[in-house]
Amino acid sequence: MEEVVKDAGIEMYEFVKRLFPIHRSITGNGVRETLKIIQEYIPITIHEVPSGTVVFDWKIPREWNIKDAYILDSKGKRIADFKKNNLHVIGYAAPINKTVSLEELQEHLYSLPEQPDAIPYVISFYKERWGFCIEHNERLKLKEKEYKVVIDSEFKDGSLTYGELIIPGESEKEIFISTYVCHPSMANNELSGPAVATFLAKSILARKQRRYTYRIIFITETIGSITYLSQHLKEMQKNVIAGFNLSCVGDDGPYSYIPTRYGDTYTDKVLLNILSSMHPDFMKYSFLDRGSDERQYNAPGVELPVCCVCRSKFGEFPQYHTSLDNLDFVSPQGLAGAYNMLEACLKLIEANRKYKITCLCEPHLGKRGLYPTINSGVDVYKESRKLTNFITYADGKNDLIDISNKIKVPVSELYSMVDKLSAAGLLSVV
Amino acid sequence: MEEVVKDAGIEMYEFVKRLFPIHRSITGNGVRETLKIIQEYIPITIHEVPSGTVVFDWKIPREWNIKDAYILDSKGKRIADFKKNNLHVIGYAAPINKTVSLEELQEHLYSLPEQPDAIPYVISFYKERWGFCIEHNERLKLKEKEYKVVIDSEFKDGSLTYGELIIPGESEKEIFISTYVCHPSMANNELSGPAVATFLAKSILARKQRRYTYRIIFITETIGSITYLSQHLKEMQKNVIAGFNLSCVGDDGPYSYIPTRYGDTYTDKVLLNILSSMHPDFMKYSFLDRGSDERQYNAPGVELPVCCVCRSKFGEFPQYHTSLDNLDFVSPQGLAGAYNMLEACLKLIEANRKYKITCLCEPHLGKRGLYPTINSGVDVYKESRKLTNFITYADGKNDLIDISNKIKVPVSELYSMVDKLSAAGLLSVV
Amino acid sequence: MEEVVKDAGIEMYEFVKRLFPIHRSITGNGVRETLKIIQEYIPITIHEVPSGTVVFDWKIPREWNIKDAYILDSKGKRIADFKKNNLHVIGYAAPINKTVSLEELQEHLYSLPEQPDAIPYVISFYKERWGFCIEHNERLKLKEKEYKVVIDSEFKDGSLTYGELIIPGESEKEIFISTYVCHPSMANNELSGPAVATFLAKSILARKQRRYTYRIIFITETIGSITYLSQHLKEMQKNVIAGFNLSCVGDDGPYSYIPTRYGDTYTDKVLLNILSSMHPDFMKYSFLDRGSDERQYNAPGVELPVCCVCRSKFGEFPQYHTSLDNLDFVSPQGLAGAYNMLEACLKLIEANRKYKITCLCEPHLGKRGLYPTINSGVDVYKESRKLTNFITYADGKNDLIDISNKIKVPVSELYSMVDKLSAAGLLSVV
Repeated sequence: MEEVVKDAGIEMYEFVKRLFPIHRSITGNGVRETLKIIQEYIPITIHEVPSGTVVFDWKIPREWNIKDAYILDSKGKRIADFKKNNLHVIGYAAPINKTVSLEELQEHLYSLPEQPDAIPYVISFYKERWGFCIEHNERLKLKEKEYKVVIDSEFKDGSLTYGELIIPGESEKEIFISTYVCHPSMANNELSGPAVATFLAKSILARKQRRYTYRIIFITETIGSITYLSQHLKEMQKNVIAGFNLSCVGDDGPYSYIPTRYGDTYTDKVLLNILSSMHPDFMKYSFLDRGSDERQYNAPGVELPVCCVCRSKFGEFPQYHTSLDNLDFVSPQGLAGAYNMLEACLKLIEANRKYKITCLCEPHLGKRGLYPTINSGVDVYKESRKLTNFITYADGKNDLIDISNKIKVPVSELYSMVDKLSAAGLLSVV
Repeated sequence: MEEVVKDAGIEMYEFVKRLFPIHRSITGNGVRETLKIIQEYIPITIHEVPSGTVVFDWKIPREWNIKDAYILDSKGKRIADFKKNNLHVIGYAAPINKTVSLEELQEHLYSLPEQPDAIPYVISFYKERWGFCIEHNERLKLKEKEYKVVIDSEFKDGSLTYGELIIPGESEKEIFISTYVCHPSMANNELSGPAVATFLAKSILARKQRRYTYRIIFITETIGSITYLSQHLKEMQKNVIAGFNLSCVGDDGPYSYIPTRYGDTYTDKVLLNILSSMHPDFMKYSFLDRGSDERQYNAPGVELPVCCVCRSKFGEFPQYHTSLDNLDFVSPQGLAGAYNMLEACLKLIEANRKYKITCLCEPHLGKRGLYPTINSGVDVYKESRKLTNFITYADGKNDLIDISNKIKVPVSELYSMVDKLSAAGLLSVV
Repeated sequence: MEEVVKDAGIEMYEFVKRLFPIHRSITGNGVRETLKIIQEYIPITIHEVPSGTVVFDWKIPREWNIKDAYILDSKGKRIADFKKNNLHVIGYAAPINKTVSLEELQEHLYSLPEQPDAIPYVISFYKERWGFCIEHNERLKLKEKEYKVVIDSEFKDGSLTYGELIIPGESEKEIFISTYVCHPSMANNELSGPAVATFLAKSILARKQRRYTYRIIFITETIGSITYLSQHLKEMQKNVIAGFNLSCVGDDGPYSYIPTRYGDTYTDKVLLNILSSMHPDFMKYSFLDRGSDERQYNAPGVELPVCCVCRSKFGEFPQYHTSLDNLDFVSPQGLAGAYNMLEACLKLIEANRKYKITCLCEPHLGKRGLYPTINSGVDVYKESRKLTNFITYADGKNDLIDISNKIKVPVSELYSMVDKLSAAGLLSVV
């Protein structure tokens, strides 16, 4: 198992490396190219939703594509060259090709004085403007009176693209996984999410048996989730029992999650239990700290049980939304850790049931070899205590998580107890 | 607004100053005189309930009035002169006119050794006895063998007097305000309550629109509230949604309140929210600390949602129930602060509703100018965060107080959000 | 009262002393002899359940009796002599009479290196094996190559024995007390439980009036309670409203209890209240710390409201399950303290009801002599405060425990309030 996970870490890291150079945005060919590569790993379906389609309070914007962008100085030197780093141009930038004064240029430049060697990630939300993102140190070197600015971009009626994979299980009830594929060259935010989601899907597909159906989507943040919900809300409200929005799950920071709006769903319960035992130093944020697609999944009237899972949470690490969120910032171990934790969540949801002990009073464990036959030493009761503690709360009211919480034993240790007691005929499913 | 409040502070202080010299007691002409002066400010009705009337477990006592009272020494010098300070005679004192030995006199004197320059406020509860209240330093000077004692008081079949103002609103549901007018010359306990209640009534009367009906009463403590409840309990139980008993609201001490018996009413919720944001250093007492008419309003079987609101709580400041609770102890600022806080409570109750966002998923705030159109900098999500936080909890389950508590924003900031979102058609009242 | 309790302490200690030398085990003559002595104090019925009887998941084992046991050295000196201390042989030891090598003998010896002068208490659970318990210091002296080992014990079809006393009351609803009589010569664990149970029974029998029926049993731990439940579960589930399992209640350690499985029964409520006021330094354990018959009474499907009451809890004191748990470890004061505390619990359960004040608003206590008639001094409200606090929560929703908890006054002080208010016609039972 550990070997498998380690290998998965390396494979996920290779996946991130391969997708890293592609220029993704809300819409356009970068998203399509990314989804096509994901199809080499898992059989996702690619959907296109035309520009102008009304999705709840929103409208799919025109498709944006870009070929090149740069600032040219008088010596013909390219500054803020899109071909060197696609963060150099703001997302959704309007086309331009003209010479501007340094003064005018400055109004269209974005840089970070406190991180002078980082290129910030900036995006215009549905408003056509032009702009460049640049290292602050490079910005300080701009001394000429005029520069030529070129953005070879295009808006057109096109579509919004997303990927979807439905893996059927015995029940129509669903586990939902969502992540996004709309960010240009940044590694943790957001190629870690697609990497982990893809390899979780591979693992789910490889299982012989699935109690639940799985719905896994690769979308654009905000407009993508709103679009997807506008198409699938009813069935999701009927079926989804737990959901995970994956973002920033590839670094080596501590594990964290954002609870649902009221923090009281099955997903909250699962994550709290798994993180408490696997990673006791995890961070539980408030829903007020939300920022990714959990915003839509938890919106009034939508109310799906979806938590956002991170390692270092977006907005909380200095590399966030800059060119420093690169292939050095994520790691095979970081990705494998998140993968492993989420696998434990899925395993728990698949296994979780309410159990009831089949006899009255304590069962006679000694005659079944499940209890010592002599009380030599004070510690005798402690030895089989985990098992008898399990039994005492297996009263048909508690699921495995409740029991784990009450008896302070990780669920991972409960699975074999269920097997032993079931084999002995001592346990029934409620 | 602040100017208005400041002016109200000065006007309330003048009100207290004007009423201060009047000798009030449970019954009698002092109460009537006080209520007549209040009629100059607001149109209260004055009610008389005859002596001997049975009110629940009690009976209206005979009316008590007093013209003069003093102790006379051998040189004709008046000691403990009622005309100089009406605290010098105990409340409900029986008439007397005779010469007594110093020894007998001592048994009828009340003084405070630890506050030797203060006259205590003492009252006999429904038992006819005579007695004088005196500065302890003056008491120590009594050296003669005999003194003449004169109390020119009278008990007669008369009535208990109270004032009442009903201000109708759109709904029959009521907000209830109660305070008392039965104390002789003390300023905080209790002319501050009548002052603030009177000026709140003026403000309520001046409003163009009132969602709720207001019931404001000026009564005698204990027997007055019992009497009033014996006449109005059914209708109050049907209609009162929130109630405030005002006592000691005129000094500059911190704000405080006594919760209802179980601390779970709408009034508790309103006060806790308003005080937490306006005066975070407020004191929340226990119902075990009660002492004013909240005792009756919260009694078993009565169970009205009435909290007692104070600045320095009765019994908790050294001037309490002494001649030191005088015009120096209350201030225009002190009165205005309480007035302002209670106005905020009333405004909240008037405005409070459950709201529901009218679209699924987050509304597109950017197209309405309510959200930035570019994410330059990490702080972008924080800027409009208060508004989106409001929206996410506007799910039809939460009133403004719930939302304020959840998103940690004062209700005073929510009113404009309601206006903006309503104007944009994004909010409906549940 | 205190004198009575002190006398009871001495009598209970004498009871422990008398029963101490008897060799008790799960089954056999020691249990019978013990129960016959208890019959000299209280009229218990002795029941026999045949070997082989199936009780839930268990079966009554064959009866075990022992006449002698010892290790003999080459000089004829007896080591680990059962006649000197019956802890020297393991419980349920199989008969043996042969010479064994020291090496083989060592495999059958039990000692405590860290308590080298104590004999451990060891028992074989339903498996026939032979063994001796010995002071570690004595064990170290064994140097000979061979020893003779003699255990003159016998297994036969016989029965399991228990004692039972039902004391009828006005109601069929029951208070249940359970303790065990299956331990050889140890004083706290477990002759303290039978001593306190016996003297509680004497006190209950002496009462003129009993609201509730009492069920008191003296049994073998585990198999005894399982057997008893297999015979009486239905009626106990119908009738038992509170139950106490007594174990280790004779030393001078702090009071402690193990809550029920969910900690939410009437018994939990009673114990928490009584211990909080009588012994504020008590220990509340978790149900995970259980170990005595509360395991069976709280098992899934059994679910009787039974807490385990201890002074120093089993397993938590160094003398536990060794020869150091002797007559020096328990004391008359220790036994009397537990007795007294449990008497307070029983008195509370007998007295406990929900009360409702019969008038609206506060009753006029002054006219009944229950309230001062003058407010001289700031402390006036504090004086009668306990009584008015009682009244304000006597609203028909709270029983005496709820009121005690809310107003922070021990229930022992509430009984006289109930009497006074009832006499005044101010209180009705709900």
